Amino acid sequence: MQNLRIPGPTPCPPEVLTAMGHQMINHRGVEFADALKDVTAKMKKVFQTQADPLLVTGSGTAGLEAAVVNMLSPGDSVLSVSIGVFGERFAKIAETYGADVVSLSFAHGQAADPEAVRTALENNPAVKAVLVTHNETSTGITNDLAAISKIVKSAGKLLMVDCISSLGSINVPVDEWGIDVAISGSQKGWMVPPGMAMLAVSEAGWEAYAQSKMPRFYFDLGKAKKSLEKGQTPWTPNVSAVLAFRVALNMMLEEGIESIFARHTRMGNFTRTGVKALGLNLLADERYASNTVTSVIADQGLDAKKLNKIMREEFDIVLAGGQGPLEGKIFRIGHLGMVKESDIQAVFDALKLALPQAGFTGKSEQR
Amino acid sequence: MQNLRIPGPTPCPPEVLTAMGHQMINHRGVEFADALKDVTAKMKKVFQTQADPLLVTGSGTAGLEAAVVNMLSPGDSVLSVSIGVFGERFAKIAETYGADVVSLSFAHGQAADPEAVRTALENNPAVKAVLVTHNETSTGITNDLAAISKIVKSAGKLLMVDCISSLGSINVPVDEWGIDVAISGSQKGWMVPPGMAMLAVSEAGWEAYAQSKMPRFYFDLGKAKKSLEKGQTPWTPNVSAVLAFRVALNMMLEEGIESIFARHTRMGNFTRTGVKALGLNLLADERYASNTVTSVIADQGLDAKKLNKIMREEFDIVLAGGQGPLEGKIFRIGHLGMVKESDIQAVFDALKLALPQAGFTGKSEQR
Repeated sequence: MQNLRIPGPTPCPPEVLTAMGHQMINHRGVEFADALKDVTAKMKKVFQTQADPLLVTGSGTAGLEAAVVNMLSPGDSVLSVSIGVFGERFAKIAETYGADVVSLSFAHGQAADPEAVRTALENNPAVKAVLVTHNETSTGITNDLAAISKIVKSAGKLLMVDCISSLGSINVPVDEWGIDVAISGSQKGWMVPPGMAMLAVSEAGWEAYAQSKMPRFYFDLGKAKKSLEKGQTPWTPNVSAVLAFRVALNMMLEEGIESIFARHTRMGNFTRTGVKALGLNLLADERYASNTVTSVIADQGLDAKKLNKIMREEFDIVLAGGQGPLEGKIFRIGHLGMVKESDIQAVFDALKLALPQAGFTGKSEQR
Repeated sequence: MQNLRIPGPTPCPPEVLTAMGHQMINHRGVEFADALKDVTAKMKKVFQTQADPLLVTGSGTAGLEAAVVNMLSPGDSVLSVSIGVFGERFAKIAETYGADVVSLSFAHGQAADPEAVRTALENNPAVKAVLVTHNETSTGITNDLAAISKIVKSAGKLLMVDCISSLGSINVPVDEWGIDVAISGSQKGWMVPPGMAMLAVSEAGWEAYAQSKMPRFYFDLGKAKKSLEKGQTPWTPNVSAVLAFRVALNMMLEEGIESIFARHTRMGNFTRTGVKALGLNLLADERYASNTVTSVIADQGLDAKKLNKIMREEFDIVLAGGQGPLEGKIFRIGHLGMVKESDIQAVFDALKLALPQAGFTGKSEQR
């Protein structure tokens, strides 16, 4: 069986795949309403929020766009805190809809400096909302969102967070951190195929919604909230993914969210330790290295694209490459959702053989 | 097994459901690229177009919104030809994004009069595009799109058509009729679960795209077109639905599109004949009655909501109710996608028993 080690879509448990193959049901009927209400109640526990997270049929990017168009108005000043491709994307969406974006960017592999966020807010008092990526999939960095949220909230700004690849894997206490809109995606730690974004909106977020003037129809979260009262979605939902999500959430709550977070911490440490033992270098500042995805620098003669090809063709292990400016410069190992030590050990075992074939001249430690 | 007789989501063949349960694969890898290219080539045959239909992860409404934001600019004058809820929705989306909508509406149960479209275009020379619903799911009417398209094209306007519940079931020769953007949805005649919209854009449509100024990011069809060259989508696709779609398209092409259209014609006639034989009245003007969904008037004492409840609880047959202004006034029988005479005969057999229980006092013919 293929060892899919990209940071999403992630492998799905057999029980989830069985649910994906469920025959269609009426999306306006009782059975679907029960599933949606159950999924909503269980999402709340993982999001650690009192708000009902809402579903949008679409990918994670649809979730980012939904956040922007429901909270902001053209001309609004927003601070974009970006540490990679997905941070840039969030800002680009805001800009597309007419927001006035103040950019605060950090080098790839670095976390955002909370003090720089504080200074940027002081220098730009007109800023209404702050866009942050919690876990930047393109570089493998997890921002110190607890620290950033304190600064953003004490400045009285809206906090809009891309938690797509953290929520469900890494601790994100949405209410405690005062996140006004938290966005996630089904194909990450949730162990469900892609096709659904989830958004939790705070009370302040709903106040912003009431004021927001960006055009929205399909992504209108107010309509989603209203439909949820009837156990429905405003537009035909991804029925299969909702039924699969219910199964996945049951599995997650059975494992327990604290245990899930601890397992991801273990997987992150295990991956980084093993990668370094092979003589490879991490892109990420280790203090902020992500527990869901590890980015590895293609140095010491290593051809990252060739490596990924060998890994796939000879070992049936699928790794991710670099995105945007990092294309060809790194490779990435996903370790979120359904993952255990042996899945990552298999990656190391194959890397030992594949690295020299891909030009790598570095020396691995004797372990 | 439940007999799901709503106009989408439609029942899926077992082979399609098996594909829905496929384990996740890399959406940037070779296997997915092969599937996407195959799906695209096969969609072209059903759309009867030389353009590559593009996929949007979302429901049919996402497809309507994608059509609007990719073709139009704020302030553009558009003619909305509406015969029901979905026509109104298409217009509302255009209005939301700042289009200047000229409304041409027809009574529920009636088709659009092509001559009225001609007159409206003559009276509103500034109109740039015409929005039409081919098959109005809420009333069960199929517009005479061949006649309407001739008028719209000879006036030199863009023709934007909601073919969500017709394409794949009813003949829609997209290129021959000069449709500039044709929108469909996976959960209709295509026999695939909901979660994916498909759009085919003409050359004139792409010229309009280049001029269009409505904000768009997630729905940007130019990005989708560019990504397709690499066998990818700009954002994480609905992997499961793409794999399932491939299987469904193989089944459709094996049956043959002419045979599919003929089967739907048969199903439409069979349904209407049977409904009338029960003493019920059709909402639709029979000259334009849809071959994918039949709307039945709740008259002669009939409580439509009660009927649907009895049909579901006692016979495991799921019918649809009325939408918007037709809520409680009609019920609807879906007959698109995977459907054969015996599925509809089972509906009649149950209706015979259920109708009197739901207050119906009309007399059925002796057959």
